[in-house]
Amino acid sequence: MSKEKPLILVTNDDGITAPGIRALLQVMKEIGDVVVVAPDSPQSGMGHAITISDTLFCDSVTLKENYNHKEYSCSGTPADCVKIATQEILHRKPDLCVSGINHGSNSSINVIYSGTMSAAVEAGVEGIPAIGFSLLDYSLNADFEPCKKYVKAITKNVLKNGLPNGVVLNVNFPKLPAEEIKGIKVCRQANAHWEEEFDKRTNPQGRDYYWLSGRFVNNDEGQDTDEWALENGFVSLVPVQFDLTAHHFMKELNDWKLDE
Amino acid sequence: MSKEKPLILVTNDDGITAPGIRALLQVMKEIGDVVVVAPDSPQSGMGHAITISDTLFCDSVTLKENYNHKEYSCSGTPADCVKIATQEILHRKPDLCVSGINHGSNSSINVIYSGTMSAAVEAGVEGIPAIGFSLLDYSLNADFEPCKKYVKAITKNVLKNGLPNGVVLNVNFPKLPAEEIKGIKVCRQANAHWEEEFDKRTNPQGRDYYWLSGRFVNNDEGQDTDEWALENGFVSLVPVQFDLTAHHFMKELNDWKLDE
Repeated sequence: MSKEKPLILVTNDDGITAPGIRALLQVMKEIGDVVVVAPDSPQSGMGHAITISDTLFCDSVTLKENYNHKEYSCSGTPADCVKIATQEILHRKPDLCVSGINHGSNSSINVIYSGTMSAAVEAGVEGIPAIGFSLLDYSLNADFEPCKKYVKAITKNVLKNGLPNGVVLNVNFPKLPAEEIKGIKVCRQANAHWEEEFDKRTNPQGRDYYWLSGRFVNNDEGQDTDEWALENGFVSLVPVQFDLTAHHFMKELNDWKLDE
Repeated sequence: MSKEKPLILVTNDDGITAPGIRALLQVMKEIGDVVVVAPDSPQSGMGHAITISDTLFCDSVTLKENYNHKEYSCSGTPADCVKIATQEILHRKPDLCVSGINHGSNSSINVIYSGTMSAAVEAGVEGIPAIGFSLLDYSLNADFEPCKKYVKAITKNVLKNGLPNGVVLNVNFPKLPAEEIKGIKVCRQANAHWEEEFDKRTNPQGRDYYWLSGRFVNNDEGQDTDEWALENGFVSLVPVQFDLTAHHFMKELNDWKLDE
């Protein structure tokens, strides 16, 4: 690898063959030296799971696009991919970790369920600047072309400016043709949640089981949120931290009578 | 159920038969009406995983302690347990959700990998006051007796005072006899990480595989952190939020040249 180019670790949670990571890879190859370490199968909804009670496989694989760079398919979660990449494959910290482009939104509260963002957060914990990218289109045939120029712009800015310790970026793209995207908007995470609905069925042996489904509910009327940005044709850019301390509540908590 | 007593959902990530949840249950039965919905098997390290591509079972079970209350064993993750409990079992929001007592620490950065805390966070997202409890002892024979009076005190305070929207509590206990525990300390999450080590082996078919292990590294010298509290004989109490927005970095991010 040339010394001038940044070393970029590419991962995702939809699996190494997903069209989204292929699109991300194309952009990254224009920017740096690339190594792909990604799950061998879809890991959506895995949150920040890690594999601690099972073995991990991580094999070098050859895919159509990987002339000139290496790819590894890992049996673990997105967070596992980042851990094994830095420790066993790259043997050094990459200059950047990018995750995605996810097939489906990781805006607002979805950040906590997101395998895509868990890879970015894991990289951030290890001191690697990191960005998660997601497109609001679950389809395998989603069109990632309109995302590319924004992926490039954000990535170049991160490489140039760096990110503060403890912060990674969460980027979501609206499902729109290129000419209808209005630009990038720096946002806060919207206050939203899922209203669960369980589809209860009975299996052939007579045992009840459930499918989880749900309805996304945005409780936030702010015009500075990622949900607002996406609904209004912008790319949302949310800085995400993994110090989860609710500092604003510490003083009140100290006034509680806990010793009685 | 009596109308005076609060309805308490009890869950964990070590599985429904773990000694830690049994200890937690004993305390909760002194405080309120209790329903247990917990994983049928250990889920440590599951982070905020949810089951979206597979079916979920959730069966009523009878265990030694459950005269007078109901217990359900769920095939999913801790976050799944909370979702299915509120939606399919309780059919209303409980007054409190407690998770644990975990066999092992969930202090500092471990909060993001923790199934115990993901259950508490999931409850918080759904607007339910929630607390995760963990003991710094991985042993199945861990002694939870010294934890009980603190579990009770913190739980009663949460029921009395409530918690702000968007905040849940992360409580960790040092592995100490009762007389050596110095009390409860309100803390922030320490800045720490894991230095991964992968144990690489070769299976009988000649394919390489890995076991994830690692060394915990505390980078934080502050005396206001959960790690400091635990090392110094205190119970750590960290308020945890799930708005992950790094608000302090938004202004700088807005100055980036993203449209060039």
